[in-house]
Amino acid sequence: MKSELLIQTPGDYHVHVRRGPMMKAVLPYTVRQFGRALLMPNTLPKGIFTAHDVAAYRSEVLSEVDDLAFEPLMSIKLCDDTTPQMVADAYAEGAVAAKIYPRGVTTNSDDGVENVMGLRRVFGAIQELGMLLLLHGEHPQAYYADAETRFLPILRQIHAEFPNLRIVLEHVSTKAAVRNVLSLGPNVAATITIHHMLLTGDDVVKGKMRAHNYCLPIAKRPEDRDAVLAAALSGDPKFFLGTDSAPHPVDRKECAECSGGIFTAPCALEYLATIFEQHGCLDKLENFCSTFGAQHYGLPVCQGKIRLVREEWEIEDQYAGVKSFRHFKTLPWKFAGKIS
Amino acid sequence: MKSELLIQTPGDYHVHVRRGPMMKAVLPYTVRQFGRALLMPNTLPKGIFTAHDVAAYRSEVLSEVDDLAFEPLMSIKLCDDTTPQMVADAYAEGAVAAKIYPRGVTTNSDDGVENVMGLRRVFGAIQELGMLLLLHGEHPQAYYADAETRFLPILRQIHAEFPNLRIVLEHVSTKAAVRNVLSLGPNVAATITIHHMLLTGDDVVKGKMRAHNYCLPIAKRPEDRDAVLAAALSGDPKFFLGTDSAPHPVDRKECAECSGGIFTAPCALEYLATIFEQHGCLDKLENFCSTFGAQHYGLPVCQGKIRLVREEWEIEDQYAGVKSFRHFKTLPWKFAGKIS
Repeated sequence: MKSELLIQTPGDYHVHVRRGPMMKAVLPYTVRQFGRALLMPNTLPKGIFTAHDVAAYRSEVLSEVDDLAFEPLMSIKLCDDTTPQMVADAYAEGAVAAKIYPRGVTTNSDDGVENVMGLRRVFGAIQELGMLLLLHGEHPQAYYADAETRFLPILRQIHAEFPNLRIVLEHVSTKAAVRNVLSLGPNVAATITIHHMLLTGDDVVKGKMRAHNYCLPIAKRPEDRDAVLAAALSGDPKFFLGTDSAPHPVDRKECAECSGGIFTAPCALEYLATIFEQHGCLDKLENFCSTFGAQHYGLPVCQGKIRLVREEWEIEDQYAGVKSFRHFKTLPWKFAGKIS
Repeated sequence: MKSELLIQTPGDYHVHVRRGPMMKAVLPYTVRQFGRALLMPNTLPKGIFTAHDVAAYRSEVLSEVDDLAFEPLMSIKLCDDTTPQMVADAYAEGAVAAKIYPRGVTTNSDDGVENVMGLRRVFGAIQELGMLLLLHGEHPQAYYADAETRFLPILRQIHAEFPNLRIVLEHVSTKAAVRNVLSLGPNVAATITIHHMLLTGDDVVKGKMRAHNYCLPIAKRPEDRDAVLAAALSGDPKFFLGTDSAPHPVDRKECAECSGGIFTAPCALEYLATIFEQHGCLDKLENFCSTFGAQHYGLPVCQGKIRLVREEWEIEDQYAGVKSFRHFKTLPWKFAGKIS
C-alpha cells in the first residue's frame, strides 16, 4: 500500500469562486491544491460577459492569490445578445472559454441563453479563435430528471455544425451524456465532479444532510452515477476533472429554496485519491486531474507536483463558513502541499 | 357559474393530526371541514400499536374536539411483532384499520415493518374482523423515484392471498399505481391527496418554496401527476380523498434534512372545489370527498352538508405556525361552514 502520492499539479476545469467576501474565503482552498482553475462566469451581482468584465474579475481574483504560479482561466457567459466581436474582445483579454447557461436551469442563470442555436455566429467566432465552448447541458423546458438527456440533441447539433469547435459538456450526470460524449468526435469532452461520482438522487431526496447534497444537475439514478464514475476511472481523455465546487452560505442551503451547489474545494484531491484507490485505479488519477483537461484546453500541464500522504483525517463540518461535502466522514489521504 | 356549493359532509381518510401541542394547533382545521378523519398511527414519541394506544390517542383527540358529530377513525401501526390478538384487541377498542409502513420509507417509520409478507396471520385476522389494511406503498430498498412502482407486486400478492381483505393503497403518486388499483378487485382502493393532483417532481426539486412541497411519496413525473388527477376526477369509487395533511414546524422544513409533509387541512375543500371545477368535474366532487371513502370503509356517509361560496381569498402564509400549501396563492371557493 502506497504511503505517498506525487502527481503532476492538477487543474480544476470548473469551479465557482464567487466574488467579494465569499471569494476571499473560498479561493484559497482552490489555490492550495490546484495549479489552475477555470472560473465560472455566472457570478453575482453581475456575470462575466465582456472583455472588461474578464479583466476586472481576473484582477479581483489575482489580488487574493499568493501563489504566483496559480493560473486563473477566465471565461465569459454567453447571452442571446453576445456578438462575435464581444467574444473576440474577451479572447484578446485572456478568456479561454465561453459558457452557455440555458436560461433558468441553474444558479444565477436568469440572464442565460434563451435560444442556443441562435448563437451560430458566435459559435463560429469561438471556433475560429480557438476558444472553448462550455455547456451547462440541461434543457430548460424538460422535467428535472430528463433535463440533461433532453439537452444532448443540442450538443450533437452544435458539434455537427462546428466540428472543429472544442466543446466541454460540463458536470455530466447521466449514462446518456457519457455515451453521447464517447460517441462524438475528439473535440467533445466532459468534466466530471467529485460529487457526481458518489451521489445518487436518493442522497439528495432522502439522504442525511440532503440539502447539502443538492446540486444542479441533480444527482441521478444509481446506473447514471455508475456510468459517470466509470467514465472518470476509464482513462479516456474525453473525461477530466471539473469539481463544480460551489459554495453557498448555510442559510442559503438550509431554507425553503435550497441553493444548488456542493463545496468540495477544501478536500478535492483527497476525495479523488480515495475514490480512485477504492476502485483500484490510482494509476488513472493523474491523467484525470492533471493531464486530460490541459490537453483538451490546449494548455501545457501545470508545473510541479502535489503530494498526498496516507493519513486518515476527519473532514471538518465547515470551511470558511460553508458546509463541506461530508459524503465520507474521514478520508485516508491527506493533501500535503505543492512541490515546485 | 355556481355561487354556492353544498356537499355531503366529507371525510378525510388519511390525515396526520400529531399529538400534544401540535395536535391542539392543527386538529381544529380538520374538524372544521370534515365529518370524520382517519388518524394516522405513526405519531411521536410513540406510534399507535395497541388497543391501549388507540384508547389513549382517541381520548386525547376527543378532548380537543368541540364538534360532537366529528368522528375520529382510529388505526394502528403494524410492526413485525404485531399478533392477530393485538389486532383483535385494537378492533374491539374501535380501530377500523391497520397500517403498514415499510421500515424507513417515510416520516416516523424507523419502527415500521421489515418483512411485509411475514404478517400473513395478521392479514388473515384483519380480513376476518372486517378491518381495513392501509398500505404506505413504497419499497424501502428502491430508488426513490421507483419506490411506489416497486411496491406494487407486494400489493398484488396481498390481494391475491386475501381477496376479501379491504385494502387502501395510500396517497398514490404514479400512473403505475393508479393502473394497478384499477386492475385489481373492488376490495382494493386508493386515497389521493390534494398535492399529488397538483405537483410534479419539478415543484419539489426546482420550484418556489420547494421545501414546503416535499412529501413522501415524493411527487413524480408530469404523466404520473396527470394519471393521479384523472383518477380523482374519474368518478371511479376506487379513488377517494385522503389529504395526508402533515404539519411540520417551519424549522423542520427549512433545514438540512427537510421533513416530508404538506399541510393542506386549512384549505382542503377549497382546493378540491377549485381543482374539480378547473377540470369541469364539479359534479364528481361530492363522491370523491364524501361518498366513496365511506363506501370502502363500510360506513354511512357523514351526516349533514358543508357549504362553500364563490369568494376569492388569499391563502395565509401560515396556519397554526405551520407553512400552508400555497400552490395557488388565491382560491375562488371559500369554506362557509357545516350545515347540520
